[in-house]
Amino acid sequence: MNAPGLNLRIATVEDVGTILTFIKELAEYEKLSHQVVGDEEQLRKTLFGDRPAAEVIIAEFGGAPAGFALFFHSYSTFLARPGLYLEDLYVSPKLRGHGIGKKLLCRLAEIAIERGCGRFEWSVLDWNESAIRFYENLGAEPMEGWTVYRVAGDTLEKLAKSE
Amino acid sequence: MNAPGLNLRIATVEDVGTILTFIKELAEYEKLSHQVVGDEEQLRKTLFGDRPAAEVIIAEFGGAPAGFALFFHSYSTFLARPGLYLEDLYVSPKLRGHGIGKKLLCRLAEIAIERGCGRFEWSVLDWNESAIRFYENLGAEPMEGWTVYRVAGDTLEKLAKSE
Repeated sequence: MNAPGLNLRIATVEDVGTILTFIKELAEYEKLSHQVVGDEEQLRKTLFGDRPAAEVIIAEFGGAPAGFALFFHSYSTFLARPGLYLEDLYVSPKLRGHGIGKKLLCRLAEIAIERGCGRFEWSVLDWNESAIRFYENLGAEPMEGWTVYRVAGDTLEKLAKSE
Repeated sequence: MNAPGLNLRIATVEDVGTILTFIKELAEYEKLSHQVVGDEEQLRKTLFGDRPAAEVIIAEFGGAPAGFALFFHSYSTFLARPGLYLEDLYVSPKLRGHGIGKKLLCRLAEIAIERGCGRFEWSVLDWNESAIRFYENLGAEPMEGWTVYRVAGDTLEKLAKSE
């Protein structure tokens, strides 16, 4: 059952403004605002076009948007099953402490199970101790011993052309 | 142009046996064989069914399968664009040194650009120094400061039910 005044719903194209605002607020909290280059048009095209690249759930509290979760499906070759990867989880600072973040995570776990996913994962900044405590209290385990490598921008173009 | 004798092609359902063999060989190399629980039927269903959860490229060398790459699409909210995530890259040990791994990475970079992806990422085991050198020589950068958290098995069921 939802907490009083709390409602989760699938985002629609009408929500792109809200989603971009939340993305910017999250980036500010993560001290990564300089990395935000997306705009409403790009969000509309990639999330609500012909081939949506990710899915978004909006949390409403007292009838107004309070936070969001954006996720996509990963894949585990060891399990031979898809996974669910949570790219962003965000709750407005003034609305924290109402269980909104936990509610979003529970809903995503439900979706993962409904869709036959073997795992549910997300990345956390190592300095974000309150988030780490919150996730560990829910039973999440850190994947120690792995590092993500990335190619982007000019390096990506160069790699593509080096064939 | 492909190196002599080297050919890359999209995997079909006929390749599930080869793919499973490669997954098991990769797991053995990673000292993670105990985590492999998938089988051919699960691979067939999740990779070649109605809703393929990932894509696979097979590398052939001298006409026989030599390795594979399995990937799916991620999403970056900061870029408001999809990304390409390489889950597994594997080349048979006896066929290393022919540029097959690099060829697979170049092809994936090409696909990433064709599909409008802003980044191309994968995870590496921290002890795998030869892989790290290989990736860094291609310009890949480690994403320091982030840790992946995971919920799976009973913990995932419990989280889904705690709503």
